[in-house]
Amino acid sequence: MSTAGKVITCKAAVAWEAGKPFCIEEVEVAPPRDHEVRIKIVATGVCRTDDHAVSTHFKEGLFPVILGHEGAGIVESVGPGVTQFKPGDKVIPLYIPECGKCKFCLCPKTNLCEKISKIKTAISDQDLMADNTSRFTCKGKQIYHFMGTSTFSQYTVCAETSVVKIDDTAPLDKVCLIGCGFSTGYGAALNTAKVEPGSTCAVFGLGGVGLSAVMGCKAAGATRIIGIDINKDKFPKALELGATECINPQDYSQPIQKVIAELTDGGVDFAIECIGLLDVMRAALECTTVGWGTCALVGVSLDDRGVAVDPFQLIMGRTLKATFFGGWKSKTYVPKLVADYLAKKFDLDGLITFTLPFDKINESFTLMREGKSIRTVLIF
Amino acid sequence: MSTAGKVITCKAAVAWEAGKPFCIEEVEVAPPRDHEVRIKIVATGVCRTDDHAVSTHFKEGLFPVILGHEGAGIVESVGPGVTQFKPGDKVIPLYIPECGKCKFCLCPKTNLCEKISKIKTAISDQDLMADNTSRFTCKGKQIYHFMGTSTFSQYTVCAETSVVKIDDTAPLDKVCLIGCGFSTGYGAALNTAKVEPGSTCAVFGLGGVGLSAVMGCKAAGATRIIGIDINKDKFPKALELGATECINPQDYSQPIQKVIAELTDGGVDFAIECIGLLDVMRAALECTTVGWGTCALVGVSLDDRGVAVDPFQLIMGRTLKATFFGGWKSKTYVPKLVADYLAKKFDLDGLITFTLPFDKINESFTLMREGKSIRTVLIF
Repeated sequence: MSTAGKVITCKAAVAWEAGKPFCIEEVEVAPPRDHEVRIKIVATGVCRTDDHAVSTHFKEGLFPVILGHEGAGIVESVGPGVTQFKPGDKVIPLYIPECGKCKFCLCPKTNLCEKISKIKTAISDQDLMADNTSRFTCKGKQIYHFMGTSTFSQYTVCAETSVVKIDDTAPLDKVCLIGCGFSTGYGAALNTAKVEPGSTCAVFGLGGVGLSAVMGCKAAGATRIIGIDINKDKFPKALELGATECINPQDYSQPIQKVIAELTDGGVDFAIECIGLLDVMRAALECTTVGWGTCALVGVSLDDRGVAVDPFQLIMGRTLKATFFGGWKSKTYVPKLVADYLAKKFDLDGLITFTLPFDKINESFTLMREGKSIRTVLIF
Repeated sequence: MSTAGKVITCKAAVAWEAGKPFCIEEVEVAPPRDHEVRIKIVATGVCRTDDHAVSTHFKEGLFPVILGHEGAGIVESVGPGVTQFKPGDKVIPLYIPECGKCKFCLCPKTNLCEKISKIKTAISDQDLMADNTSRFTCKGKQIYHFMGTSTFSQYTVCAETSVVKIDDTAPLDKVCLIGCGFSTGYGAALNTAKVEPGSTCAVFGLGGVGLSAVMGCKAAGATRIIGIDINKDKFPKALELGATECINPQDYSQPIQKVIAELTDGGVDFAIECIGLLDVMRAALECTTVGWGTCALVGVSLDDRGVAVDPFQLIMGRTLKATFFGGWKSKTYVPKLVADYLAKKFDLDGLITFTLPFDKINESFTLMREGKSIRTVLIF
């Protein structure tokens, strides 16, 4: 019996307040309204950004909320006006929409979309649907959406501009990572830093995003890729995925930017920061070479003091940029990345250290916080 | 009678210590050594960087020193091994050398040269000649060089890699500005920010460098150029040279970045900071548009706290860079800029508010500090 047009009651992880574990609850998911799609989520990754969103340090968060932004699923039903999707389509929800019509979507220089251009922080937007209401309720209370995706629910509702159809043969428990972590790191190297063949790169932080950045540097033809992490357990995987050497800042008495400059005759061509710590961002900028060093920031910081950038570091020819979703225009490129994965152009499987049932969501966050996982995929 | 090979005694402005007026002194200028050129300086501009160098806030400065880095003159004699110059050549000293052989000179992405790649701040280098000695003495004391140019002396000695021959017909009392201020601002727009036709630009600070940046934006085809200064007296000149409007931050209660974002439907495409204040640098970055805003820093700051850059401003698609001498490879482009001036492609004369005899150097610094001059040219 079709569920289309009806409220669906299903399982979701609700964050009732900051700093507390998720509660697995029965939630009601309303039918999609105009230009919305309801999706049965099959698999979802767990990302540090979700952790930030429940952090007590993040002051913009609205509660109660259903987090999750790295999912993959199957269209259950579509709202009025939706023509691009039909029930049964395999899809990935997109936390950066691509309306295809705004000045941002029409500009080749950016992957942002007017629908999120007014947000105040990278993780504060799309708390409600376009009509300023939520499709989620639980125990009589409205539950906020998150980044327009809310993949920590067996069913979710997204704007049609925030979903894209992918290849029918794609394994959803793998390609869900293309919804955030993989694409962000990989694109930071290819699209934001624009790593060049023969170049030397430094990647700070060897979690899921950092390892994807390593893969991006390798795909771009970098000949030397230095992985940096204070957790040596991450080195074997980094070396397997493309790093040519790995170093631990704790092994040196000098600041890591000086260590790297000495290792590389003056600095790397490209540095990519995948942690989100202000001091590491500064080190990443300063470890690049005089003349043309480019530093791309990927990590999201909750520290509002800002990176203390010495203008002279820039005067000497360095450029500082950052990436949001790796610079990929989401609707355009996510299906291509899925196709590239199916063509074995890169390795997603290597990023997945744990695949757990959805009910183990709190355990997956503990694994992440303790540095014991690269990426955990939760399966409904 | 030729002075070649002999010590020349001449007039120079010596800065004996930080925070004190210059003293006009008789100095001895030794003959040029290997690969050096001795130049009779005819005219020199006065730049805020010279003022920084005698500031008590600038801790790297060595004294006593002969400052000046925006000069033009005539070759008096050449040292052994010099083949590119002969006595009588009109030249401009270059505070960024171009050796033509190092990895920086060979790379099209930068105008830096290995000879200055190790410097710690934008104005701390080239205190001595390559052999670690000075060509200047005064009252029995060695006097330091400055930026490899020391144009506040009737005669100076430069490395041959730090001098370039220019057109014989060039008026030295005008083209001296191509040695620093004009080229820096103009190139910041053309080479560093890479201003595009039809774009909207903001230029912070309407001194000599800022006005040159305005000219650069205009030359690049920008259709809207907003000049920003707290000194309204600078507005008429800015409008004459290419600004389409000028605003004074003191006329608004909101931060200037918000004012500009509102004026421009979300922010400018390019912002150029020509003052050197950390808060203004931050405002310049933040007044650029989400998606592709580029901020180029030109001003040199003596404040070592750094610009507090909110990473989220960058995540939303902004790029932060800075310029040194406008990105021009010095030996290659200074003669071309002189030729462009002679072909009336831009207006240098409009930047010169005062032309004074060299002995009035302290007066010229007072005019600059009080915001009463754009550029003063001192004539020997």
